[in-house]
Amino acid sequence: MSGRLITLEGGEGAGKSTLLQGLRAYLAERGIEPLFTREPGGTALGEGVRALVLDPALRGMCAESELLLMFAARAQLVRESIRPALTAGQWVVCDRFTDASYAYQGGGRGQPRERIADLERWAADGLQPDLTLLLDIPVDTGRARAAGRGEDSDRIEREGDGFFERIRAAYLQRAAEQPQRFRVIDATQSPQQVLADAMAALEPLLAGSKA
Amino acid sequence: MSGRLITLEGGEGAGKSTLLQGLRAYLAERGIEPLFTREPGGTALGEGVRALVLDPALRGMCAESELLLMFAARAQLVRESIRPALTAGQWVVCDRFTDASYAYQGGGRGQPRERIADLERWAADGLQPDLTLLLDIPVDTGRARAAGRGEDSDRIEREGDGFFERIRAAYLQRAAEQPQRFRVIDATQSPQQVLADAMAALEPLLAGSKA
Repeated sequence: MSGRLITLEGGEGAGKSTLLQGLRAYLAERGIEPLFTREPGGTALGEGVRALVLDPALRGMCAESELLLMFAARAQLVRESIRPALTAGQWVVCDRFTDASYAYQGGGRGQPRERIADLERWAADGLQPDLTLLLDIPVDTGRARAAGRGEDSDRIEREGDGFFERIRAAYLQRAAEQPQRFRVIDATQSPQQVLADAMAALEPLLAGSKA
Repeated sequence: MSGRLITLEGGEGAGKSTLLQGLRAYLAERGIEPLFTREPGGTALGEGVRALVLDPALRGMCAESELLLMFAARAQLVRESIRPALTAGQWVVCDRFTDASYAYQGGGRGQPRERIADLERWAADGLQPDLTLLLDIPVDTGRARAAGRGEDSDRIEREGDGFFERIRAAYLQRAAEQPQRFRVIDATQSPQQVLADAMAALEPLLAGSKA
């Protein structure tokens, strides 16, 4: 049986990392040891691209280049890691995937949707997640959380609130258009409740039927 | 008056660097101080992309990623450097441009022509050179020259002869299809004669009329 692709999406400070830890333990209890990966990144090429995309010194990066870099990393990740794992029957949990390009480069940077859809088709090989968990949180709440981590902000985190509002709206629009694949989780809840919602969303996949 | 965009194309060991030196002196004598730039590269982002594309450790890079990286660098170069220079009336001489993607990622890697044309339209903003000097040389002659430099070969230089034969054929095909823009120069000639051919090709532009 082919593996399942689960993606986690959400803006800054939504709690993806915390949820990933919880999911890892939950799936391990069920005997599932997924490939955990992330975007941009997950391969040697992808991590090199990640360093460029997040480099605060490259603040003049045009939206077109940002979109192309994201798909350069994704094309490699799909072919080198995700597809082989799925084919071998392994589950894959990916911290952001193509929906993030619709949200960040589409909603955030204004890149046309058809352009992203075309790249999705040939660069990401049309690969669609079986389940996408969207951690939704108001922009000011999420940004306050992210700031509280005490890390230096990267090039994308330095954008203004309007940018992140557009990202949130684009994510919610994608979820509304594809309800069969998306589960929107209220990320203002406690980490325990967020994990409980995620586990509930995963149950149908664990039972062997597609969500 | 808007500046002119001159691009230099050719396979490994064709003598582009030597010709660039000669052109620099020739144009300076005519009172023209072009912006000299190169691909991939020419911007902080582009040089970062160049390091990835040429890194021998990334030998598993898929053709799709290579194509996207080339256009990520190009999108930035066009917007940050080439367009502003041309608008300001400055000439630009670029060591490789979009024709190289048709040759290397198209001919060499088999990426579809329509895919490259689409990227050319939106990522490279449809920008076309006023003149393209194609230094044509048999693959074995060029590779022997390049090997004689004594430098470690990069990821692309490590490809086999078949790859470079396809690149040469793709370059010659582009030149045949767009004779008004291309000048094919026999790069087996002496550096002096190659420069003389290039200068002859530049004369109509210097006279103020498009070649």
